Amino acid sequence: MKLSVRAVAGEFLGSAGLAAVVIGSGIAAQRLSPTDVGLQLFENAFATALGLTVLILVFATVSGAHFNPVVTVADIVLHRRRWSTAAAYLPAQVIGCIAGAVLANLMFAAPAVAWSTTDRSGWPLLLSEVVATAGLILVIFALVRSGRSHLAAPAVGAYIGAAYFFTSSTSFANPAITIGRMFTDTFAGIAPASVLPFVGAQLVGAALGLAAVRVLFPTPTPALAHAPD
Amino acid sequence: MKLSVRAVAGEFLGSAGLAAVVIGSGIAAQRLSPTDVGLQLFENAFATALGLTVLILVFATVSGAHFNPVVTVADIVLHRRRWSTAAAYLPAQVIGCIAGAVLANLMFAAPAVAWSTTDRSGWPLLLSEVVATAGLILVIFALVRSGRSHLAAPAVGAYIGAAYFFTSSTSFANPAITIGRMFTDTFAGIAPASVLPFVGAQLVGAALGLAAVRVLFPTPTPALAHAPD
Amino acid sequence: MKLSVRAVAGEFLGSAGLAAVVIGSGIAAQRLSPTDVGLQLFENAFATALGLTVLILVFATVSGAHFNPVVTVADIVLHRRRWSTAAAYLPAQVIGCIAGAVLANLMFAAPAVAWSTTDRSGWPLLLSEVVATAGLILVIFALVRSGRSHLAAPAVGAYIGAAYFFTSSTSFANPAITIGRMFTDTFAGIAPASVLPFVGAQLVGAALGLAAVRVLFPTPTPALAHAPD
Amino acid sequence: MKLSVRAVAGEFLGSAGLAAVVIGSGIAAQRLSPTDVGLQLFENAFATALGLTVLILVFATVSGAHFNPVVTVADIVLHRRRWSTAAAYLPAQVIGCIAGAVLANLMFAAPAVAWSTTDRSGWPLLLSEVVATAGLILVIFALVRSGRSHLAAPAVGAYIGAAYFFTSSTSFANPAITIGRMFTDTFAGIAPASVLPFVGAQLVGAALGLAAVRVLFPTPTPALAHAPD
Repeated sequence: MKLSVRAVAGEFLGSAGLAAVVIGSGIAAQRLSPTDVGLQLFENAFATALGLTVLILVFATVSGAHFNPVVTVADIVLHRRRWSTAAAYLPAQVIGCIAGAVLANLMFAAPAVAWSTTDRSGWPLLLSEVVATAGLILVIFALVRSGRSHLAAPAVGAYIGAAYFFTSSTSFANPAITIGRMFTDTFAGIAPASVLPFVGAQLVGAALGLAAVRVLFPTPTPALAHAPD
Repeated sequence: MKLSVRAVAGEFLGSAGLAAVVIGSGIAAQRLSPTDVGLQLFENAFATALGLTVLILVFATVSGAHFNPVVTVADIVLHRRRWSTAAAYLPAQVIGCIAGAVLANLMFAAPAVAWSTTDRSGWPLLLSEVVATAGLILVIFALVRSGRSHLAAPAVGAYIGAAYFFTSSTSFANPAITIGRMFTDTFAGIAPASVLPFVGAQLVGAALGLAAVRVLFPTPTPALAHAPD
Repeated sequence: MKLSVRAVAGEFLGSAGLAAVVIGSGIAAQRLSPTDVGLQLFENAFATALGLTVLILVFATVSGAHFNPVVTVADIVLHRRRWSTAAAYLPAQVIGCIAGAVLANLMFAAPAVAWSTTDRSGWPLLLSEVVATAGLILVIFALVRSGRSHLAAPAVGAYIGAAYFFTSSTSFANPAITIGRMFTDTFAGIAPASVLPFVGAQLVGAALGLAAVRVLFPTPTPALAHAPD
Repeated sequence: MKLSVRAVAGEFLGSAGLAAVVIGSGIAAQRLSPTDVGLQLFENAFATALGLTVLILVFATVSGAHFNPVVTVADIVLHRRRWSTAAAYLPAQVIGCIAGAVLANLMFAAPAVAWSTTDRSGWPLLLSEVVATAGLILVIFALVRSGRSHLAAPAVGAYIGAAYFFTSSTSFANPAITIGRMFTDTFAGIAPASVLPFVGAQLVGAALGLAAVRVLFPTPTPALAHAPD
């Protein structure tokens, strides 16, 4: 993919959309279902699974629809792309997620920026982020390297929807949105002090995911126009 | 697409179906889950996401399955179609949504027509409608202009299902159904005084969505019979 | 499709599976979520939408996966098939749905057969059955007649999942399962006295659905191996 | 498929992932939705349906994505493959499910290993396991033998999501995960004394499912690159 202003704009807009979906639906869930946190997370997961699938479909042909620094870096490492992509994409992803957080806050009449006070610490949550991020990298590049990248949109949406529940961290799995989620003191927020450990765990997970991809999918298969899947 | 009575009948029936799904499932949710508004919205979003996907599949080859004035107008503007389509489609969409509202009321033994008393006002809701409509236009025409319009049905259903939660307005994103939803004093209703601001916000959102489509998808790609996605 | 013992066995097994899914998940929902009827219906709709989609996928190449007398009759009327199919399919569908009801009762330790005491009467419910059945016929034959019958499985599952909520009758839309649901005194049951009016409404709905199919899809399109959808 | 270390590693990792999804989401549901067991099961089913679909997509080209001894054995019996596959796959599946149970426990700060105290006994539950396993085998091999194995991932995910509700046993349908679920004293656990009867019922169900496959799909159809479904 040729790096272009259009692609960087796509990463910015898609990342903003992702943060707005995650944070906005979290606020709605928290306000409308005040008595059951599981139901709040269920509503949040439903909206995120559907919204993320759509965002990947929309931006796939524009920027590759990464919305996530570890996906961009893994793509560069695995497929020997230029690091200049990372230099452009990563800031777009982080700034996009912050913009999406502000937009979600405003749509729900919350302060435009409010530091989250939700402490998310402890090794079970960090282990969860390792697992969630390793799984995400494996899902994406398993499909890419077996010639089925057209299935990435629903697969990643479904994966994150499931991971909201099968991890204790609710699966951030993305350093950019982890940073963005500092900027809202609502359901999906994360206190600034918890951000660095989360990002560290995500980097460990990404490395493990990359190792699994290399072992399980050693040779990339070219996309097949008539692939049976 | 050649404009025909059949196409206009399709827009009427599909719009009626959409309003019946949205309003009917809202009544069922409100009556059956009386203690949790979030659960009501979840049931409403589940039924709408599935029902809208099916309606678009059914009417796609009949009328293009717009069911929405801003989609019809955006299609004309982007693809230089004739404005006579709008002259036939828009009344069919509005009258269809009103008919669907009446049908939903009757299926649930509510008065055939009752003006909604649900006030929906305030700038956060209007901002939400701007965002929701811009996103809807972007989703539809991103797929159309990248040769993947066969994915529009599930993508639009998923988008609206998510947008019920990630906006504070529950995402009307459609002037025709906004008008139709005046005609029911139930969960999905909107007080007549709130309609014009909603429609105004939707028009602003549509314009923003169109601008995003032009920037991100400058050249339409012809539909590919063997597109890998 | 050549009529065969295998096809009739497929209709029997598929209809039994459908009744077991609908009734079984209704019992589970009623027992496990005792305080919110909407949540019960949501769980029931979720299981039915997924289960029905899978059943249609499994039996599509065996029997056409009708599981429903009005679908079989509509197929004969629209596509000039032999009435002998109906003579074999209809009993298999009805007996299959009764067998599935008994199986569901047994799986949940309820009496193998217990007449339902759930009264389902009143014109709003009958109007709902008219609408639900008309919609079902339209969904199925819209896809068949536009060369997209491969989408029928997820579309019908999604349609019924939505129709559980957008009608007040929870959308039986099938005379065979209406009869089968007499045989269980649980969430999905229907009192024998309510069956005939339901079936009558379903026949009216099927006729309306057929008329809509003829108007909207006047010429069947042959299935296209490379159809863009 | 040539048996390889890579394939066995795939079965191990995929089985671990499956157990982590099932058990982890069960723990989250139980803790976050403490007042409604139906809602707990709904959240568990939602996560499992999505997660299982993704796992099958990821590992399909690596190992065939069985994750289940009865699937491996049925595949050998139906398609005359070598029994050496079973000798390698079955231990990988069982050990993988145990590893996944431990991982789920750790992610939620539960003891790494704790024998389940959840008694699951009685003939209705065993009948449920017979039905659930027969259905699973039929779903998988109906698709394989009609040239549509590319649909197995979403179909199996949807099937299990539905079967959580339409059976009274919540549908284990897999001896490996039944063993793995002994190792957690949480929502998805099963007391060791209940395991053997469950596995016995699953074997009976698998045999019935195989018989149904032979009757309904007597001749395997080669996968068609351009199959209309």
